Amino acid sequence: MVGGGPGAFIGEVHRKAAALDGLTTLVAGAFSSDPAKSKQQGEALHLDPARVYGSFEEMAEREAALPEDERIDFVSIVTPNFMHFPVAKAFIERGIHVVCDKPMTTTIEEAEELCRLVAAHDIVFALTHNYTGYPMVKQARAMVENGELGEIRKVVVEYPQGWLATKLEDVGSKQAEWRTDPSRAGVSSAVGDIGSHAENLARYITGLEIESLCADINTFVLGRALEDDANMLIHYKGGARGVLHCSQISVGEENGFNIRVYGTQGSLSWLQENPNYLHVRSNDGPERVYKRGNPYLAEAAQRNSRLPSGHPEAFLEAFANIYVNAAHAIEAHRTGVEADDIAMDFPTVQDGAIGVHFIHKAIESGKKQAWVDASYEAV
Amino acid sequence: MVGGGPGAFIGEVHRKAAALDGLTTLVAGAFSSDPAKSKQQGEALHLDPARVYGSFEEMAEREAALPEDERIDFVSIVTPNFMHFPVAKAFIERGIHVVCDKPMTTTIEEAEELCRLVAAHDIVFALTHNYTGYPMVKQARAMVENGELGEIRKVVVEYPQGWLATKLEDVGSKQAEWRTDPSRAGVSSAVGDIGSHAENLARYITGLEIESLCADINTFVLGRALEDDANMLIHYKGGARGVLHCSQISVGEENGFNIRVYGTQGSLSWLQENPNYLHVRSNDGPERVYKRGNPYLAEAAQRNSRLPSGHPEAFLEAFANIYVNAAHAIEAHRTGVEADDIAMDFPTVQDGAIGVHFIHKAIESGKKQAWVDASYEAV
Amino acid sequence: MVGGGPGAFIGEVHRKAAALDGLTTLVAGAFSSDPAKSKQQGEALHLDPARVYGSFEEMAEREAALPEDERIDFVSIVTPNFMHFPVAKAFIERGIHVVCDKPMTTTIEEAEELCRLVAAHDIVFALTHNYTGYPMVKQARAMVENGELGEIRKVVVEYPQGWLATKLEDVGSKQAEWRTDPSRAGVSSAVGDIGSHAENLARYITGLEIESLCADINTFVLGRALEDDANMLIHYKGGARGVLHCSQISVGEENGFNIRVYGTQGSLSWLQENPNYLHVRSNDGPERVYKRGNPYLAEAAQRNSRLPSGHPEAFLEAFANIYVNAAHAIEAHRTGVEADDIAMDFPTVQDGAIGVHFIHKAIESGKKQAWVDASYEAV
Amino acid sequence: MVGGGPGAFIGEVHRKAAALDGLTTLVAGAFSSDPAKSKQQGEALHLDPARVYGSFEEMAEREAALPEDERIDFVSIVTPNFMHFPVAKAFIERGIHVVCDKPMTTTIEEAEELCRLVAAHDIVFALTHNYTGYPMVKQARAMVENGELGEIRKVVVEYPQGWLATKLEDVGSKQAEWRTDPSRAGVSSAVGDIGSHAENLARYITGLEIESLCADINTFVLGRALEDDANMLIHYKGGARGVLHCSQISVGEENGFNIRVYGTQGSLSWLQENPNYLHVRSNDGPERVYKRGNPYLAEAAQRNSRLPSGHPEAFLEAFANIYVNAAHAIEAHRTGVEADDIAMDFPTVQDGAIGVHFIHKAIESGKKQAWVDASYEAV
Repeated sequence: MVGGGPGAFIGEVHRKAAALDGLTTLVAGAFSSDPAKSKQQGEALHLDPARVYGSFEEMAEREAALPEDERIDFVSIVTPNFMHFPVAKAFIERGIHVVCDKPMTTTIEEAEELCRLVAAHDIVFALTHNYTGYPMVKQARAMVENGELGEIRKVVVEYPQGWLATKLEDVGSKQAEWRTDPSRAGVSSAVGDIGSHAENLARYITGLEIESLCADINTFVLGRALEDDANMLIHYKGGARGVLHCSQISVGEENGFNIRVYGTQGSLSWLQENPNYLHVRSNDGPERVYKRGNPYLAEAAQRNSRLPSGHPEAFLEAFANIYVNAAHAIEAHRTGVEADDIAMDFPTVQDGAIGVHFIHKAIESGKKQAWVDASYEAV
Repeated sequence: MVGGGPGAFIGEVHRKAAALDGLTTLVAGAFSSDPAKSKQQGEALHLDPARVYGSFEEMAEREAALPEDERIDFVSIVTPNFMHFPVAKAFIERGIHVVCDKPMTTTIEEAEELCRLVAAHDIVFALTHNYTGYPMVKQARAMVENGELGEIRKVVVEYPQGWLATKLEDVGSKQAEWRTDPSRAGVSSAVGDIGSHAENLARYITGLEIESLCADINTFVLGRALEDDANMLIHYKGGARGVLHCSQISVGEENGFNIRVYGTQGSLSWLQENPNYLHVRSNDGPERVYKRGNPYLAEAAQRNSRLPSGHPEAFLEAFANIYVNAAHAIEAHRTGVEADDIAMDFPTVQDGAIGVHFIHKAIESGKKQAWVDASYEAV
Repeated sequence: MVGGGPGAFIGEVHRKAAALDGLTTLVAGAFSSDPAKSKQQGEALHLDPARVYGSFEEMAEREAALPEDERIDFVSIVTPNFMHFPVAKAFIERGIHVVCDKPMTTTIEEAEELCRLVAAHDIVFALTHNYTGYPMVKQARAMVENGELGEIRKVVVEYPQGWLATKLEDVGSKQAEWRTDPSRAGVSSAVGDIGSHAENLARYITGLEIESLCADINTFVLGRALEDDANMLIHYKGGARGVLHCSQISVGEENGFNIRVYGTQGSLSWLQENPNYLHVRSNDGPERVYKRGNPYLAEAAQRNSRLPSGHPEAFLEAFANIYVNAAHAIEAHRTGVEADDIAMDFPTVQDGAIGVHFIHKAIESGKKQAWVDASYEAV
Repeated sequence: MVGGGPGAFIGEVHRKAAALDGLTTLVAGAFSSDPAKSKQQGEALHLDPARVYGSFEEMAEREAALPEDERIDFVSIVTPNFMHFPVAKAFIERGIHVVCDKPMTTTIEEAEELCRLVAAHDIVFALTHNYTGYPMVKQARAMVENGELGEIRKVVVEYPQGWLATKLEDVGSKQAEWRTDPSRAGVSSAVGDIGSHAENLARYITGLEIESLCADINTFVLGRALEDDANMLIHYKGGARGVLHCSQISVGEENGFNIRVYGTQGSLSWLQENPNYLHVRSNDGPERVYKRGNPYLAEAAQRNSRLPSGHPEAFLEAFANIYVNAAHAIEAHRTGVEADDIAMDFPTVQDGAIGVHFIHKAIESGKKQAWVDASYEAV
């Protein structure tokens, strides 16, 4: 692991998620840019001190120098955004697989460079758009794929949070500090941190790609350097329309990520805070509530689930599914025995590039106060 | 009543709503442009045949000619949109008060002409933006007014319906026919029919006025003459931001009108399909669910309620509140004894003009695919 | 109307419900045992003073003496429980149809006497177990009847309220006073006032009749003369089992009447405070949420509904359905032309007798702290 | 671990829960009474073959013989009910701490013997009544303790499941087989498997102890050897009343465990399938929805939580809390440094004895069809 030092939120989530199924064991880390803190975290995690490093460069170099059956199988990158690129690059170039937090990079150029590096070095690269790990999200995707909703016409995806409604970055909140600091977060706060999840989730479920968008980019908290609220109209390729909004100043909202997808034959809705249920509607019959853990669900939903129905799963299991499926891919890479699509379903480096492109286009549209072309051509 | 002939939906709603509290009695009508149908409806309603008219002109003229204590106190206009203006004008000019369905007119010019006429003739004019009649909407308004949410930053208002997802206007649905026909509905279907309710509700609760907007206006059903889906970004005067979307093709949605208002101190949400509850949140304590019929509610919420808590009220009672409060205003007009603001709280001719202006600006923005100035100056 | 004087709650509900559809008009009343109050209420309702009576006896006598086309068609009895019997008897014996509030009488003997009188005089007698008027309750009944749930095994029906958690009867609450006074309410408060609705609803939906029961009858508020909480185990004839509990001291509950019915193939649940939805589950597929106002519903649900789907109906419409269907029966009685079962579906004098019997058996079981035979043989 | 062989459900849950926080590592096991299966499971878990045993006796003996810093710190017992006692006894007598699944034993005598053994050997014994590990259950308990609900009057606790609505035990379901087999499950199926959770949860939150009860014990599925449905009336010591019902034939229910507690000042409700929320009501103000992960919660709720608010936790985390807190107690035992009450909050051997006593009294009452004294005196 790179990042995830004392006090970090997402590093701990990654560690718990990775450990949940016993498939991976944390053996090495560069947990902080401050070697003392890295060491402290390594001790807290009972790691071999020899494999707790003072910098990611040292870690990449020394792990790569170990015999193949002793070195790490992959690295988890859980630093603030601006460090994703150099860290990922260092490990990719040494042939070490990567699980990386989102947004993937702070510039499009870096994102595309990663795409090229991953291809060139034949690396498994998984991006933790963790919300796509939820079983009922996989059910939603399967139902759209199977045509149960007909042709998709409209997507409404919302990601409201309220935690940055005041200037937390001035009162010692580490989480707030780096997310609102352009030098560490990049060009965007709200869109980068949560709007990118919204874009990814909508695309994961529907397969729709953005053609153009018009964004209203707002900074409500006085003196904040990046936007804390963003609202967008979207034209998808093929004619579907979308509304996407995300906010960090929506007081009283915790992590109210949700999506509704409307097709010609049916519609569905899913709410992250109550993730075991998928609501499916049509104009012709009663609403149906699909529930996690049941045999009537799509195979992808069933296989990404651990507990029987009625025994709720939640955030951690969904996060862990990214790790499990990445582990399957790494194993397949090692053995040459391909697993099936469901086993290796996780967000890729291309998803990361699309996300970074989306962030930049949204900010550009907000500045221009106009519609902008936002279609993306993969490198 | 003018309109509301055999098979009409909203005419029957108006009749039930008006009768609910025993304050008004239907005594006369021109229920259809077809005199035979008007007569048939009059008979079904057990009216005196002498007061069932073949046309609204005849009705206006003959009712106005009756002695003051025999003539109608007010007229309810429940025709398709394009007839609102001529009918209203005919009665206003004869000094008869008006309850009129929305949108008020099909052009801004007509809307402003009505504003002038209402003022000139000193008429009570109530527009049935019926959703503002709900007690918990009045509670929401009171809480915003009292500053319980702080300064309003963001408003999300949605009005999804799915009933026009197929071309119902081609298979004999009267409701669909006139709503999608420019000659009867005006320049808009979705925005006019339901988006205007959304604008009105947001303004009623928050007091915010639109400064500019950017709309994406969509027609999904092939060959339909008017839009069936609309999504907008809004800048309110004073700096608040909004998202407003409405749809008639959101399959599986029945009448899912809902609003969320986010302030600096708190937020609220309300859903029309489950109207007895108002959810209020903050960053500091548990979510609170305010329930209709309780003594802890604002006076406006209490006085616009009929049943004890737990005995749900719904659409009809909210609709009736427009009639009750208009009746109070008419009575005040007659007696010269003013009732208080709560007793006379209903949407006015000015609200109607704002709504018509909003509809036109939304359509204009959609055509331009650009932000447009949408501020309105009352005549 | 007999009862429903100034300050009464249920009288006003009856009046609004009866008037909702324009089928009935209130023309006469004995609104209070105090002639002055009766007169006052009659004036408030704009009735002909000649038909506002000082006592129910006077009303029965004088109305019966009017020519058939001038006299009342039926009487609504909305007094405290102990007066239901004498009032009903007076009108039945004069051939006047009756709508009566529940519980029907305070003793089993009176209940059975009414059964005999109704039969002897060929009278339409409707009891306002108003909750069976809800469209989604009718949907539930239809689904059980159609076998969609298989054989019914278990019924859980709850009626929690919290309004009597303190001794309201000592601080001037009229509603609390008579309901907790044995001389006016009879042997029971909680079971009589709300538990009887629970028994009726369960029987209405499932058709199940009680064979035996074991009740725990509790009085929590010190000094209260009747029970304010009751919990029961039930054996239905044929082998189904039940849990029924009702309470007036369940703080925070408003009118949380709800039922769950479990069969061999499926189950359903319905909640009065959110009455437009019926939840249906099985072990084999997603939960289904049936919504009022849709064409996929049973005919009985559709015909007892007034508004389109998504435009919520509530308590008043359900109450009105009892009146509408009673009016159909009275009309059928008058014309000799029978309406169909759906049109004449309302609780009868036999339902009332079963209810009174149930109340007495519950109280008896509570006193004995033992199971008691509670099967009822109709007279 | 003892039990938890191939195909077991709860063994895998225990393993994931125990591993979640990195506090415990599985190092040894007797996973099946069939040594081959035990070995197979050990291999699947990558355990040292030397510590995978063919029987629990062997395991107890050989682990106890290891040096203190090499042997297991505690054993997890996840076998069918009838094996809990002999396994626990074997380890307790060798001074090894125990985490044991519920119900603790199949007879009261065994339960009380375990109480004596635990005391005599000074052992940490944790029973996995896992539902008390939920943060919002701890919040509920804290609010009752703090008097926020006033004096408790009524408790309604339900545990409906539907999975045994047909005779699964005849078609190869291992889970169904042992649970409905008296020789392995004991005197009860529904009450033992889930009713005991209900008793425990109610007591955990309210502190109320049962004085007497009247149970209706039902077997709906023909030929089943144990009950599959049970409904009870309860008198708690001190005057509170209860309704407790549990079922395995409530078709369509998954794991719908829920509780409502009514006091003189307020009430609360919690639903296991949606566990991040606690609903608190009073007669005086809006309903409050407490949400996991917030600083306004009681300390016990906060400390038993891992993720920020809005990032839902669920079944596994709650289960893990039993392990974490047991680990704290074991650590305190080892070091002699006591942790505080919150850190060491888990169900004990006494809770287990109370539960076993409850199960037997419920079955006894059902057989007698009468109220029975059910108060329990700890040994």
